Amino acid sequence: MNDQFIKIQFPDGKQQQYERGVTLTDIAHSISPSLSKKTIVGYVNGIPTDVARPITEDAQISLYDAASKEGIAVVRHSSAHLLAHALKRIYPSIRFGVGPVIEDGFYYDVELDSLITPSDLPQIEKVMKQIINESLEINRKEVSREKAKQLFAHDPLKLELLEDIPQDETVTVYEQGDFYDLCRGPHIPSTGKIQHFKLTKVSGAYWRGDSNNKMLQRIYGVAFATKDELRDYFVFLEEAEKRNHRKLGKELELFMFSEEAPGMPFYLANGQIIRNELESFLRNLQAEYDYKEVRTPLMMNQRLWEQSGHWDHYKENMYFTQVDEQSFALKPMNCPGHMLIYKNERHSYRDLPIRMAEFGQVHRHEFSGALNGLLRVRSFCQDDAHIFVTPEQIEDEITLALKIIDHVYKVFGFEYEIELSTRPEDSMGSEELWNRAETALKNVLNNLGYPYKINVGDGAFYGPKIDIHIKDAIQRSHQCATVQLDFQLPDKFDLTYIDKQNEKARPVVIHRAVFGSIDRFLGILIEHFAGAFPVWLAPTQVQIVPVSQVHLDYCFKIQSQLRQLGVRVKIDDDEEKLGYKIRRAQMQKIPYIIVLGEEELKENAVNVRKHGEKQSISMPFKDFKENIVKQINERSI
Amino acid sequence: MNDQFIKIQFPDGKQQQYERGVTLTDIAHSISPSLSKKTIVGYVNGIPTDVARPITEDAQISLYDAASKEGIAVVRHSSAHLLAHALKRIYPSIRFGVGPVIEDGFYYDVELDSLITPSDLPQIEKVMKQIINESLEINRKEVSREKAKQLFAHDPLKLELLEDIPQDETVTVYEQGDFYDLCRGPHIPSTGKIQHFKLTKVSGAYWRGDSNNKMLQRIYGVAFATKDELRDYFVFLEEAEKRNHRKLGKELELFMFSEEAPGMPFYLANGQIIRNELESFLRNLQAEYDYKEVRTPLMMNQRLWEQSGHWDHYKENMYFTQVDEQSFALKPMNCPGHMLIYKNERHSYRDLPIRMAEFGQVHRHEFSGALNGLLRVRSFCQDDAHIFVTPEQIEDEITLALKIIDHVYKVFGFEYEIELSTRPEDSMGSEELWNRAETALKNVLNNLGYPYKINVGDGAFYGPKIDIHIKDAIQRSHQCATVQLDFQLPDKFDLTYIDKQNEKARPVVIHRAVFGSIDRFLGILIEHFAGAFPVWLAPTQVQIVPVSQVHLDYCFKIQSQLRQLGVRVKIDDDEEKLGYKIRRAQMQKIPYIIVLGEEELKENAVNVRKHGEKQSISMPFKDFKENIVKQINERSI
Repeated sequence: MNDQFIKIQFPDGKQQQYERGVTLTDIAHSISPSLSKKTIVGYVNGIPTDVARPITEDAQISLYDAASKEGIAVVRHSSAHLLAHALKRIYPSIRFGVGPVIEDGFYYDVELDSLITPSDLPQIEKVMKQIINESLEINRKEVSREKAKQLFAHDPLKLELLEDIPQDETVTVYEQGDFYDLCRGPHIPSTGKIQHFKLTKVSGAYWRGDSNNKMLQRIYGVAFATKDELRDYFVFLEEAEKRNHRKLGKELELFMFSEEAPGMPFYLANGQIIRNELESFLRNLQAEYDYKEVRTPLMMNQRLWEQSGHWDHYKENMYFTQVDEQSFALKPMNCPGHMLIYKNERHSYRDLPIRMAEFGQVHRHEFSGALNGLLRVRSFCQDDAHIFVTPEQIEDEITLALKIIDHVYKVFGFEYEIELSTRPEDSMGSEELWNRAETALKNVLNNLGYPYKINVGDGAFYGPKIDIHIKDAIQRSHQCATVQLDFQLPDKFDLTYIDKQNEKARPVVIHRAVFGSIDRFLGILIEHFAGAFPVWLAPTQVQIVPVSQVHLDYCFKIQSQLRQLGVRVKIDDDEEKLGYKIRRAQMQKIPYIIVLGEEELKENAVNVRKHGEKQSISMPFKDFKENIVKQINERSI
Repeated sequence: MNDQFIKIQFPDGKQQQYERGVTLTDIAHSISPSLSKKTIVGYVNGIPTDVARPITEDAQISLYDAASKEGIAVVRHSSAHLLAHALKRIYPSIRFGVGPVIEDGFYYDVELDSLITPSDLPQIEKVMKQIINESLEINRKEVSREKAKQLFAHDPLKLELLEDIPQDETVTVYEQGDFYDLCRGPHIPSTGKIQHFKLTKVSGAYWRGDSNNKMLQRIYGVAFATKDELRDYFVFLEEAEKRNHRKLGKELELFMFSEEAPGMPFYLANGQIIRNELESFLRNLQAEYDYKEVRTPLMMNQRLWEQSGHWDHYKENMYFTQVDEQSFALKPMNCPGHMLIYKNERHSYRDLPIRMAEFGQVHRHEFSGALNGLLRVRSFCQDDAHIFVTPEQIEDEITLALKIIDHVYKVFGFEYEIELSTRPEDSMGSEELWNRAETALKNVLNNLGYPYKINVGDGAFYGPKIDIHIKDAIQRSHQCATVQLDFQLPDKFDLTYIDKQNEKARPVVIHRAVFGSIDRFLGILIEHFAGAFPVWLAPTQVQIVPVSQVHLDYCFKIQSQLRQLGVRVKIDDDEEKLGYKIRRAQMQKIPYIIVLGEEELKENAVNVRKHGEKQSISMPFKDFKENIVKQINERSI
């Protein structure tokens, strides 16, 4: 070994000698100049590192460009500094809080006497671009705490952050031109490397997220590796906004909210029709699979929640009331009620599995700031089920549960991904039990041939679980269904059955939900279908528009025949122009608009406009009738 | 006029002269000795009067025997004295509270150091019969308050009652043999006139119904005019006990209760099937009548309940919780939520009527002692609707509401009686409005040709109402449906619509329920059908019993074909004897038991036993299938 050289190992395992003190830029350059130019950050022995930082020991390294996950995160971090730098130029008296990376971008929290508004953002972007054009080198500097205090003497929030840095940690400052920031790094080597960014919005934010602290101003931005990605992002946002369920919920009169019950949806007639269809769809499917539907009270004595463990783990999110001078809790989950029903009778192994289902309305407190339409509420209806099984039945029952989930998701056209979460650190129960349970879940997934991801240590403390993540029409992921094994609840409620040897045995409980929350699932469906629901779900399935008032009788005849088949059909007999009425029905995203005039009357035909199609076609009413009934019965999309 | 005579007028208008001081017994005797014997009480100028009391002025009179409503009430009152008299003989130290008449009988509250148990009742009855045989005259005596205090010096509860007698009222004591009681009367003339009575039970009762007072012992009895009536009463009780919904609810596994949620039913699978059928029946019917189903939150801010008036009138029965550090109430009614939905949009007269329906789960506190299975609960699901109308639409909408009610009740075979309750003393709103509203309700009832009873002054403070009382299979009456006009809520919530003159107008709200409470209605149905539900409601509609295991395949084939038609069908494949399995299914009151053996298999037939019929009959499976589907679809009983 020569003291002058160190050994660098690349991700592919190859090794090479470099001079001690070599930088990642040097190494990249030694491979190719273009690699050096692209490389904006590296990992040295697993630690994210500035490309200009000298390497003084043997090391494993990897290099990243802006297109990589690791690289773009650093670009976004440096974009936050760039934003701060520009703000400092525009508002010299500004003081800074934190400026972290978030999904797709970054933000910076600032304290400033004047209010920054969206109309200020273009000017700030302009200054950011100037600093990019200046291609300022970004330098890491290690400083003493005393030096740091001097540097940030004018920035009290930074001084607070400085206090929080552990004493054994080196304090570092990143400098670019006349701007510097207290920061762990790493950063890209030059402001010139940032290209595809945009500031998106401003909002208020409490310092350190605590509403007891002062309110700062938060400026958000996004940054991407390429121009296309940046453009796609805004196209996506626009698409998502078109599909926004709160907006569509209002336009299509599906639901409303009131300040008299924040976070608790009011379903209007159209929304309630969809809810009823969803419930009845799953109810019938569950009946086929021999589920027993039950209904349990909305509130139960506090001591029950102490027994179930919810009191210890969940009471902050529960609502309480007084009954007969005792504390009762509104149920946040249905499990304890189902345990009471199981205990209401003696059971033999011949009775198992018992599949107990409930459309249970639960209440869970959420901070008002966290509420989000139907996606995050304080009261929702769970399509909950608890399956009581012998240990030998676990695999078969998980398989059946996954079959129902697959059936339901296919009906909506959802693709999905499966994650298996295994034993966490704070788990309860023996290792042997856990291993058997995890093996059972893996066996099921393998036998079904489902690909899945393992989240090591991410299971519930009471057992391992399978979570299902659906992908909606614009590729957003939502965790909905879950299948969880539970060894603890049967213990806590001392559940038993008499086994084949005529001895008391402990059943295992499988928690299972398909929609998860019907309310949230409806929110997802609204966005997935952009409000244009498949026929079986559509609040109005057919809108009849007469060419003129003289055709109304024919309209009523057609309406009555469709109604007899259970089709939800309306006539628009307002005194408006035909074209206007058709457009109005299209705006309401009604699957079928049928126009009835002289010709249709003569031929016993209908002129049909399917939602989303430009052309209308004429067909015998008989054909239309058969067609729509088939679509409804098959729940086609 | 002669001072010696007075004029007595009979109910038929005839008049006759009698000597001043004549008694009702004398008058009855003057008509016929047998009438005199039968007469046990009379009314003199509308006031119930002892038959032995002299009449000193001209008067209108009527005479009553024990078979009359007026007479039997007096017999029951005298029976309470008889009971007290017997108790005094057995327990000389006993002290007495009150001894009033109740439906079918009477009770007496007593204070005694030893406990009276049901096994003591025959001995008490024996002494009562002795006193009857003694034919003691029952005499009314007017006494001074001082004299009364002396008489009841040993009876502190009576002294309390004495204090409560207004100073301007004459204090009277009724005497029979050595027993006397503080009492307004009237009473029958002799203990010998009581014949058909029975003591039924003992219970505890707080003095004056106040749980702060001491607990007394209450002894109940019944008394009737004839032996047959007394026997019928116990036959009825036995029949009612057979039909007791709590007993059947357990046997048929319909629902359960838990001490973790007193008064809040848990529906088991069988009960939930019936609930779902009831809901879906009414949901579809309401859709035909163009009702819009909505769903509103279970709790709302206290200020909303202050606005609606529930806070003032109902807060003692409401449950409260804290949300965002504000007081929220669990809804005891759905009205305010529906008002918020109405206000969510602007309305024109063209939008009205709006028929807003909800299957709304409400919570109302009841004393734990008042809870009674499904008939009196703390949480129940109302089939609630609010119909928003212009004043001109009131009659049409009430008519439609009554039509739905009639349709629903006919399906269950319920006869019903209608009561119209009019303006109470504490009414709100102008007299003119009330008159118009009452006229509207009467017009509707008259136009429909419905007989009805008017309860003067029994309306709600916000408007007049129509209550429907159904008669169940054993002739008990239950108030279920209601149709109420409301002028106040639209005011309180400032509801408006734009009328034809393009001006703001106030709608009227019609509150309407058909089942009332689904939970209570289910309780009534269980008792009405004695658990033998009509096919469409039965949790299991068909039970298949194989003659032996070799016929199981045929059973599965039949089951699968029936299931495809939506029939709820089970196979009993336990290894038990055929006869046992048939009896078991009969105990479960399953509408159809079909037995499948060699012969049925050969002929593609089924051997059918209809519930309640002794003979089974064989028929082609095809016929059975058509028959049962028809019954289900038609909801026949």
